Amino acid sequence: MAAEQLRAPGSKPGENMLWGGRFTGGLDPLMVSYNESIYFDRAFHTQDIRGSIAWARANHKAGILSIAEFKAIESGLNKVEEEWVAGTFKIIPGVDEDIHTANERRLGEIIGKDIGGKLHTGRSRNEQVATDMRLWLRDELRKIETYLVDFLKVMAARAEQEIDILVPGYTHLQRAQPVRWSHWMLSYGMAFAQDLDRLREVIVRVNQSPLGAGALAGNCFGVDREAMAKELGFDGLLWNSMGAVSSRDFVVEAMQWGSMLMTHVSRWAEDLIIYSTGEFAFVRLADAYSTGSSLMPQKKNPDSLELLRGKSGRAFGQMAGLMMTVKGIPSTYNKDLQESVEPMLDHVKTVSDSIQIATGVLSTMSVNPQKMLASLDPFMLATDLADYLVKKGVPFRETHHISGQCVAFSEKTGVSMDKMSYSDFQKIDSRFEEDILKSFNYEHSVEQHSAIGGTAKARVLEQVEILKKMLE
Amino acid sequence: MAAEQLRAPGSKPGENMLWGGRFTGGLDPLMVSYNESIYFDRAFHTQDIRGSIAWARANHKAGILSIAEFKAIESGLNKVEEEWVAGTFKIIPGVDEDIHTANERRLGEIIGKDIGGKLHTGRSRNEQVATDMRLWLRDELRKIETYLVDFLKVMAARAEQEIDILVPGYTHLQRAQPVRWSHWMLSYGMAFAQDLDRLREVIVRVNQSPLGAGALAGNCFGVDREAMAKELGFDGLLWNSMGAVSSRDFVVEAMQWGSMLMTHVSRWAEDLIIYSTGEFAFVRLADAYSTGSSLMPQKKNPDSLELLRGKSGRAFGQMAGLMMTVKGIPSTYNKDLQESVEPMLDHVKTVSDSIQIATGVLSTMSVNPQKMLASLDPFMLATDLADYLVKKGVPFRETHHISGQCVAFSEKTGVSMDKMSYSDFQKIDSRFEEDILKSFNYEHSVEQHSAIGGTAKARVLEQVEILKKMLE
Amino acid sequence: MAAEQLRAPGSKPGENMLWGGRFTGGLDPLMVSYNESIYFDRAFHTQDIRGSIAWARANHKAGILSIAEFKAIESGLNKVEEEWVAGTFKIIPGVDEDIHTANERRLGEIIGKDIGGKLHTGRSRNEQVATDMRLWLRDELRKIETYLVDFLKVMAARAEQEIDILVPGYTHLQRAQPVRWSHWMLSYGMAFAQDLDRLREVIVRVNQSPLGAGALAGNCFGVDREAMAKELGFDGLLWNSMGAVSSRDFVVEAMQWGSMLMTHVSRWAEDLIIYSTGEFAFVRLADAYSTGSSLMPQKKNPDSLELLRGKSGRAFGQMAGLMMTVKGIPSTYNKDLQESVEPMLDHVKTVSDSIQIATGVLSTMSVNPQKMLASLDPFMLATDLADYLVKKGVPFRETHHISGQCVAFSEKTGVSMDKMSYSDFQKIDSRFEEDILKSFNYEHSVEQHSAIGGTAKARVLEQVEILKKMLE
Amino acid sequence: MAAEQLRAPGSKPGENMLWGGRFTGGLDPLMVSYNESIYFDRAFHTQDIRGSIAWARANHKAGILSIAEFKAIESGLNKVEEEWVAGTFKIIPGVDEDIHTANERRLGEIIGKDIGGKLHTGRSRNEQVATDMRLWLRDELRKIETYLVDFLKVMAARAEQEIDILVPGYTHLQRAQPVRWSHWMLSYGMAFAQDLDRLREVIVRVNQSPLGAGALAGNCFGVDREAMAKELGFDGLLWNSMGAVSSRDFVVEAMQWGSMLMTHVSRWAEDLIIYSTGEFAFVRLADAYSTGSSLMPQKKNPDSLELLRGKSGRAFGQMAGLMMTVKGIPSTYNKDLQESVEPMLDHVKTVSDSIQIATGVLSTMSVNPQKMLASLDPFMLATDLADYLVKKGVPFRETHHISGQCVAFSEKTGVSMDKMSYSDFQKIDSRFEEDILKSFNYEHSVEQHSAIGGTAKARVLEQVEILKKMLE
Repeated sequence: MAAEQLRAPGSKPGENMLWGGRFTGGLDPLMVSYNESIYFDRAFHTQDIRGSIAWARANHKAGILSIAEFKAIESGLNKVEEEWVAGTFKIIPGVDEDIHTANERRLGEIIGKDIGGKLHTGRSRNEQVATDMRLWLRDELRKIETYLVDFLKVMAARAEQEIDILVPGYTHLQRAQPVRWSHWMLSYGMAFAQDLDRLREVIVRVNQSPLGAGALAGNCFGVDREAMAKELGFDGLLWNSMGAVSSRDFVVEAMQWGSMLMTHVSRWAEDLIIYSTGEFAFVRLADAYSTGSSLMPQKKNPDSLELLRGKSGRAFGQMAGLMMTVKGIPSTYNKDLQESVEPMLDHVKTVSDSIQIATGVLSTMSVNPQKMLASLDPFMLATDLADYLVKKGVPFRETHHISGQCVAFSEKTGVSMDKMSYSDFQKIDSRFEEDILKSFNYEHSVEQHSAIGGTAKARVLEQVEILKKMLE
Repeated sequence: MAAEQLRAPGSKPGENMLWGGRFTGGLDPLMVSYNESIYFDRAFHTQDIRGSIAWARANHKAGILSIAEFKAIESGLNKVEEEWVAGTFKIIPGVDEDIHTANERRLGEIIGKDIGGKLHTGRSRNEQVATDMRLWLRDELRKIETYLVDFLKVMAARAEQEIDILVPGYTHLQRAQPVRWSHWMLSYGMAFAQDLDRLREVIVRVNQSPLGAGALAGNCFGVDREAMAKELGFDGLLWNSMGAVSSRDFVVEAMQWGSMLMTHVSRWAEDLIIYSTGEFAFVRLADAYSTGSSLMPQKKNPDSLELLRGKSGRAFGQMAGLMMTVKGIPSTYNKDLQESVEPMLDHVKTVSDSIQIATGVLSTMSVNPQKMLASLDPFMLATDLADYLVKKGVPFRETHHISGQCVAFSEKTGVSMDKMSYSDFQKIDSRFEEDILKSFNYEHSVEQHSAIGGTAKARVLEQVEILKKMLE
Repeated sequence: MAAEQLRAPGSKPGENMLWGGRFTGGLDPLMVSYNESIYFDRAFHTQDIRGSIAWARANHKAGILSIAEFKAIESGLNKVEEEWVAGTFKIIPGVDEDIHTANERRLGEIIGKDIGGKLHTGRSRNEQVATDMRLWLRDELRKIETYLVDFLKVMAARAEQEIDILVPGYTHLQRAQPVRWSHWMLSYGMAFAQDLDRLREVIVRVNQSPLGAGALAGNCFGVDREAMAKELGFDGLLWNSMGAVSSRDFVVEAMQWGSMLMTHVSRWAEDLIIYSTGEFAFVRLADAYSTGSSLMPQKKNPDSLELLRGKSGRAFGQMAGLMMTVKGIPSTYNKDLQESVEPMLDHVKTVSDSIQIATGVLSTMSVNPQKMLASLDPFMLATDLADYLVKKGVPFRETHHISGQCVAFSEKTGVSMDKMSYSDFQKIDSRFEEDILKSFNYEHSVEQHSAIGGTAKARVLEQVEILKKMLE
Repeated sequence: MAAEQLRAPGSKPGENMLWGGRFTGGLDPLMVSYNESIYFDRAFHTQDIRGSIAWARANHKAGILSIAEFKAIESGLNKVEEEWVAGTFKIIPGVDEDIHTANERRLGEIIGKDIGGKLHTGRSRNEQVATDMRLWLRDELRKIETYLVDFLKVMAARAEQEIDILVPGYTHLQRAQPVRWSHWMLSYGMAFAQDLDRLREVIVRVNQSPLGAGALAGNCFGVDREAMAKELGFDGLLWNSMGAVSSRDFVVEAMQWGSMLMTHVSRWAEDLIIYSTGEFAFVRLADAYSTGSSLMPQKKNPDSLELLRGKSGRAFGQMAGLMMTVKGIPSTYNKDLQESVEPMLDHVKTVSDSIQIATGVLSTMSVNPQKMLASLDPFMLATDLADYLVKKGVPFRETHHISGQCVAFSEKTGVSMDKMSYSDFQKIDSRFEEDILKSFNYEHSVEQHSAIGGTAKARVLEQVEILKKMLE
């Protein structure tokens, strides 16, 4: 992916190599493999060829190529692409340093070097690799967008259908207040929907054309950058040629995005791993997403969730590594930037696969509402008692005291709070009215949280509607 | 910043403490300081008080507080804020665990506990801290936005004024092609302008209201979340109460943004540090941004630039640390989230200061066009020779060979390429015409790169205009 | 901490400052605060003064200072230190840029500038700050060493005492095999013991003397570096003056160490947070390390553990940030290195506090063996069945099938596996003998794992002994 | 690498899959590939087979396998290894989930399932993968140790031979004081030697045996762990079975080590990239480690150095990612840990290749002492003037003033400081003696820095000797 080729083997190292060392001959085979990128940047073969066709067309319009030459190039490049698709393209080791040279080498073989050699007029590999990467990344992010929409559709559908299931809501992993199971699901739904929102912004910034930036100074032959950008589906142009070849911000931003999304995936997975334990037992993964044991029927390891959680570290690592790489290097193209390719490929695959796996897990997971209900604890309603009294006009500072007395009564008598009688309550405070019994249950508690964003049924269904709209 | 207070000192550890250990009494003083956040979250005093006033107003409208109570609370809180501003607020160690409890404690002292105690009705510290942090961060990011605009205005102004200065353009830090100095500046200008664009998107996502989310389940008293959000200047509501108290995405996103911007700052500083060396000597920092030596007059250390470069690591570290903290914890509020506050404060200060310092450096730095010119090398025009011939209709493959012959002639004869005569060129290839002499210079080379985004004068001035528009 | 002072306010920026900008005067107040380090590097006051005394002594021996001058300096520096300790040292804003200049300024005031001014002969702030940081870090790491030993002593003592408690051992957070509670504790004990081992290696590398390295080229006056190193308690010398002022490896290594330790702290905390849930209920934190609720008695938030878990992200972030800062800067002292100080201070405090808090938590936490026992599940013994048969000579491949039949029998009949009769077993496979009943229980299972490192009692007690030896 | 296999395709997801989603059938092909590790953990084939032979031998000795069975297994495993080495081992997609199952599947085919099936008695994949990884990593780190020694040998040899070359020493990238070129080289030599020291410590901790730890609870059949460890060349045993399967500390530590080393590689590369610019021109890379241009003879891109610098970010990223992955997961084996394998493989290859490339660069790079000399600046001797006077007994505070006057004289008269006459000096201060002329040159300056670790010739050669000893 460098601007020029490694020198031929004939060149000599300095004289007086008294210090020896692993290699003092003319060519270091390890350096060849350390330097070459073809074994990973071939991932861009389609983008490279589409870019070259656009380039040839622009050079034809600029008067550099005749119509016949352009047609020959276009047709030749399409044949090269067919070879890639068919899996018949043969990389020549040590010669095809990167995808750009490989494609041009093959083009020359197909249409002859006289015409083929004209394709590179006024062009630099610096702009070419930036173009390929942006096109590839844009295409992949659009696929990821559809996977994310699919995931959220499943979430919305489940949230709608399972609206009546109650579950403990935890803070500090301690039971705090009862909530709807759908409310829990949508807490992640809303985070992922914001990821979707942000992704759409990221794509626009990725999808800017560097083509025509040259090695760093721009193009001398008046190519029509806007026409090329349009042909390739770019949303706009990068306005400075030095910046265009210098920047891997589009990769960093996409990876920042992916790393954030993966923290959501990881937290979601963490919740479900805990909910899958024998002790919680709220959910059970489908067999396809877990590993069982023929010997221990109770054992159902949530491997999919653990991989989702683990891979979020990996996605972050690729981002962190690239940020370190780009930080502090001087401007324009430096070979350090080649190190942006593999992290990007790995990160994008990780994120893309993970969203799909998460969708599979969510689509097939079964829930156990009885276990959820059993895990609700009457003491979780103590705040509801206090809130009840506030609504009856008792000052807030008093209510907590009274509620505490109810708790104490329950602990002392062994009567569970939800089994206390009206007279029990009356003895503690005369402002309790008969409706205390009716209202003192989990369903009622949940419905009381009826301000926007709360766990009351209408509010949760409202969230479902909002989520659905965000997917459009 | 937790939902409840540490237990009183009277409580006892388990019996049979045969294993000893640093602390087995009822209260660990180190735990008190490990846990408390007042010494840093007091940064949010204004936001906390504004949030509380909005909360009280909403509770008044919901019928929880009388108009008199609301007025008392509002007036009391304003007095508390005055104490913070005047520096007279006295934190009570061990009691004022966080800014929320500190403010409420003081409010109670000013207006009495009977009314003061009502402020917290239906509210949780979980939603409060999220509200405070979002308001604070929004306000700070808006300031940063103005600093960034100021920086870019200076850049646009310098680029416009210094349009005629030429400088070597480097790839791999090797002289490659001549470019305008302004073109180099704008390569960063465009990167920072994209940061500005992205910042504006980030602010919108930060500026969403969690107020009314409760501890996790929402609000029971029908507070009007939209009215509170409007009063506090939020752009919208967070739609799920569990997500609202759970998420520090807004901090992570702002820090991802800041870390990306700082990579631009670092690369820019790196260029300028190199350009400030005795060997390059292209630029000279103002005394205010460097350290000199009374003894060694040649020594002018670019401390400001080195700090800018160094602090970009720090800004990244805060982001990386927080991402690790939030990754993998279960949903809703966990005390781990307290660890988002200090990284945010430090990161924001780092970014904010750095942009201002960079502006100072850029505003006062002097350039040395003679040194830049002296660093241009006639061999940098070899590609222009080839391009010249392409324009004369010579096939691209031949042009490189001919240009190589000119280089060889220059090396052999010792005649610098820009001093070669027409007849020298003619001898090498008869297709050279007399205009070769006229066109063969740095200014001409720069002007040849006239496609959009290139280093030709009109194209650079075009960039200045685009940049200015992006600042509006 | 820079080598020279910022220029005086009188100096002028370049002319023609048409581009404006935030600051174009002679001095930028923000730059002063951006640059100065006194507000954090005063942490090194003791080390700075000890280093200066050693320096003066060496210069006396080298003939640079008379005995009277040395005595005056020594006595003066001791007075400065007394002021720091008493809290009476007054930092002069804008003058005392860093701890080195502050101490020298004050020394000059106390003993006069004529003698005081001689202290800095042949010395550079570059070597001084490196010396201060190494001394400080060595001292702090030694304190951390003792905290870690204390923590492990508690762990060993608990493991010894609670040797008879059984608990489910989990893989994938699913119940897998019964283990001793002490075995679980020691799984962390061994990880922390390895941290201790590594820490002792780190301290040796931190504790190398840079004093005498000069600005970068070494010392001209023949100071006796070995004598200074001995006086300051260093374990050895740094052998290259450029490397000595250039390196912050000692900080990075200490922070890598701390970050690794904190991952152990985090995993340990994660286990305990899960074991503290209402659903598991294996352990209960002392009140001093949790927050309760007057209203919800079931609520006992493990704040200490969550902070331990959260702070492990923070400790990592400081390390990651510094690694980015030092990566890629050129050799010797660059001002970027100033950015190593605050991360080090914060990281060391985080690690130091965290170990002490963990010790407090462990010393005071109560366990609930009944809950642990109740969480054991007869299906966890299915592998023991298979192992039993292997020992009776049944081929391994058959044993799993037979064990699976027992499981199926239990599921079908509803008879828990540990309640199956000898005849039940006999019906499934005639090779079961009567001892199957005796051996089929959790205690027996645990004792079967009797190879080194297993969960049998003797093996766990063996671990306790090994751990104790590692603490010596 | 999981403990058990994915369920067969026949299993069904829950009913009522109204929410749809990408996959609701019995098996998700993407999950199969998301889960399987064979395509990367086959790297451990040798280690896995060596470990299995040791395991079989121990089981034979424990009475689980007959001698004939052991011999059959040993011989069969050796045949499997031969297939791997010959490249004829055929992975069966979807069946050979990981290297362990692949090897056992093939063993069964070769020696029959009756005997082959006995190999896994009492063994878990959890201990197996930990064993394989540790053996592999130990072997690789030992190779890296030899590469590092080779690199340092070249450095020592060059430093010895090029001892007479002087070069500017830079602080803040500004010329500060003259130093020996060898002194600069050894500043990195000493850092790398410390890496070597640390590596040897890391290897010991990596090389501890987990074999015999079982799934988590230990081994039931009394295998002799010490004998197995000895056979496999381990340095010791891991003492706790839960910790043994839980820990990836050995990977993290090795990657922390590699990341630190790579920061040295990066700084070294950064210096050389700057020294290779046209403006500095101190060094010239051999053609094998750079890319040239047929067109621009001045262009010689230091691609090798830029890749070294860039890959240091990548090495860090793998470490950072894994630290995030292991932080906060609960104890023992969780599938997240599978995500430690690929980062380790990539990191180790990066570090291993990079050291070898650096060796090649250093062995073949030519230096330009004339350019180095030309870059020395008489003002760099101003501190030597002051030091000269100190040695003549002039108080330190005066010397700087006098030296400043010499600088001013030079600037005013245009007489370079090193061309000033004795009378020029005398006029400035009468304490200058005639030896000022003799001593006032770069070589003399360098020799003055004669304390240990300084840049005087004897001191630099001393460093060479010390370095050589550290390589033994």
